[in-house]
Amino acid sequence: MIDQQLVKWGKSGNIIREIAEYCDEQAKIVGEDHVYNFTIGSPSIDPPARVFEVMNKLMSSVPPARLHTYAPAIGFPEVREKAAEYLEKTFGIPYRKQDVIITCGTSTCLAALTKVLLSGGGRAMTFTPYFMDYKYYAEAYGSGLTECPTTPDTFQLDLEAAEKALTSDTMMIIINSPNNPSGVVLKREGLEELARLLYKKQAEYGHPIYIVADEPYRDLVYDGQEVVFLPSIYKNTIYCYSFSKSISLPGERVGFMAFTPELDDYFDIYSAAIAVIRAFGYICVSSMWQRICIECLGETSDISIYKGNRDLLYGSLTEMGYQCVYPDGAFYLFMKTPEPDAMVPGDSFGTPGYVRIAYCVSREVIERALPVFRKLAEEYRIAR
Amino acid sequence: MIDQQLVKWGKSGNIIREIAEYCDEQAKIVGEDHVYNFTIGSPSIDPPARVFEVMNKLMSSVPPARLHTYAPAIGFPEVREKAAEYLEKTFGIPYRKQDVIITCGTSTCLAALTKVLLSGGGRAMTFTPYFMDYKYYAEAYGSGLTECPTTPDTFQLDLEAAEKALTSDTMMIIINSPNNPSGVVLKREGLEELARLLYKKQAEYGHPIYIVADEPYRDLVYDGQEVVFLPSIYKNTIYCYSFSKSISLPGERVGFMAFTPELDDYFDIYSAAIAVIRAFGYICVSSMWQRICIECLGETSDISIYKGNRDLLYGSLTEMGYQCVYPDGAFYLFMKTPEPDAMVPGDSFGTPGYVRIAYCVSREVIERALPVFRKLAEEYRIAR
Repeated sequence: MIDQQLVKWGKSGNIIREIAEYCDEQAKIVGEDHVYNFTIGSPSIDPPARVFEVMNKLMSSVPPARLHTYAPAIGFPEVREKAAEYLEKTFGIPYRKQDVIITCGTSTCLAALTKVLLSGGGRAMTFTPYFMDYKYYAEAYGSGLTECPTTPDTFQLDLEAAEKALTSDTMMIIINSPNNPSGVVLKREGLEELARLLYKKQAEYGHPIYIVADEPYRDLVYDGQEVVFLPSIYKNTIYCYSFSKSISLPGERVGFMAFTPELDDYFDIYSAAIAVIRAFGYICVSSMWQRICIECLGETSDISIYKGNRDLLYGSLTEMGYQCVYPDGAFYLFMKTPEPDAMVPGDSFGTPGYVRIAYCVSREVIERALPVFRKLAEEYRIAR
Repeated sequence: MIDQQLVKWGKSGNIIREIAEYCDEQAKIVGEDHVYNFTIGSPSIDPPARVFEVMNKLMSSVPPARLHTYAPAIGFPEVREKAAEYLEKTFGIPYRKQDVIITCGTSTCLAALTKVLLSGGGRAMTFTPYFMDYKYYAEAYGSGLTECPTTPDTFQLDLEAAEKALTSDTMMIIINSPNNPSGVVLKREGLEELARLLYKKQAEYGHPIYIVADEPYRDLVYDGQEVVFLPSIYKNTIYCYSFSKSISLPGERVGFMAFTPELDDYFDIYSAAIAVIRAFGYICVSSMWQRICIECLGETSDISIYKGNRDLLYGSLTEMGYQCVYPDGAFYLFMKTPEPDAMVPGDSFGTPGYVRIAYCVSREVIERALPVFRKLAEEYRIAR
């Protein structure tokens, strides 16, 4: 009487975690110096000092029983208000406190919104390459995920492909820019064309199509590259942000989602989101961490280190003959195979023939790995 | 295309939270001194010193980027191992690291296990009075919750009623002792009879029936009252614990569930639980808080304060003529109506005619409220 689909999913595991665990095991056998672990997107740079300043202030000024009490399921009102104010100030859209729900990172947003938007039988769509959990959520809660291809090598939007991929049961489009796994930032022109296409298709299908903007990497861009704020070009957008990557607190699980005030069927979607969050049973986001994170909104860890890693890795690998997509943001490099060990293969991201290299590691790991990449390039005879 | 059942649930809200919010609003109007808020089960006693000792030690010895990195979805191996060791040492059942999953309190356990056990179409059963979210989870994920009555006034198990309430689609029995909302601790004799009944019914129905032991209040008992460890009398028990109440950290969301090694269909249930936790999208429990909490397993805040509150409140209310169930544990008093304001009505707990008074407040709130209780007793002419 146990749902066998759940059993199957539970047994199938997560390829990123599995390779990471294999790395840990190998490190015990061959020594840490001989394992180059580029698997997990977990920041190696410490959080900004402000995180600990706020923590100390809270711990010395708020009585512990009050500091650690339950938060409301959707977050403390003052935390939600600060998020709304920041969004309005930064992007010019008049979000109100009630438009913001504090969540355990963007993963909760995606899981909850997928259930909300697809539980009537709808489909999700996203652009390759993409983070594998999208597919998992869409299969768990709806009728699945459509993978829409992007332009070869540059991974920008391909509007013809998008028009072909849309169907009358498409309820949500997940957009992740800067992108995991490619580091690509989507350009304004393509996004504005997509918005026009979606407005047209909404009218044609007779129901709204929602963009879910999955943006944990928004603040990790390296050369002043514009990251388009999707709610400003498409009103049916639900914006999702996480503090995990920007201020190096992935394990503390704080993020939020914001509903544009003029979202179609606002109240139905908002109410359903609250129901789903309750049904997930995590009750609330860490009371302490949500109060800390909100005071750091807009800040980042010292990302010049990631930029240095990117420049070193991209420069060296392309010089060796590897083909990589130039990453403007996030901390991933998506490289065409030959496939070295200990990296996450691209077919997990809907894009066979590539591997993801997470360069949020210490520079020393990259420096140690480069000779191995070179040796591999020579073996595969791609070296210039 | 939005699931209207979800919309309805989202709009319906949570009666405890709603009354609590009403209290906050009234406090602004009539002054805090005239509001006696006994609604929310959030501890007013500070966490034990050990919480902050461990926190300081972790923060000074583990580099921040490592301390706050992602935990595995089911918890750090060393945290799971410590939980297993504690359970074995304390209760004599040979739990292994792999039997333990770290969760966001027992709420996640209940939500996840309800989905796992009922998604094949099964029903849950629990004993009145009970915590309202059980019903919510059972309706969200399965075919609903059967409310089995207990003995009048004492709220102990009524085995005849239990035998009548069981049906062939009953897959899980949720047992919450010490009980929210009554504070009652279930006696060994009744539980052992129940275990015998369930073994019989399992054989009759041809499928396992699982007990989910919801035990956030296990360590909050006041007079050396025995709290039976259910896995020791019924092997198909999944044990759920939370640090929220025992060490006053409800907002930091740490608990765990433990599967008895000899559970029927162990691997199916365990795999499905992992799938469901992934589908909920909270990824992991706070990396910092799970490492802190596990070092405090078995400790409590200074519960002599709750005991003092209970003695004062129970003694005073019964002296005034109110009828209350004597609570051996937790920090709730379940009192027969007349219904004063600002308490949570018993029909939300499947038991009309009662109100729940959460006495995890400061003693001063109780002292201020007693004259109001007395006045009310006089109005209702129940005063002795």
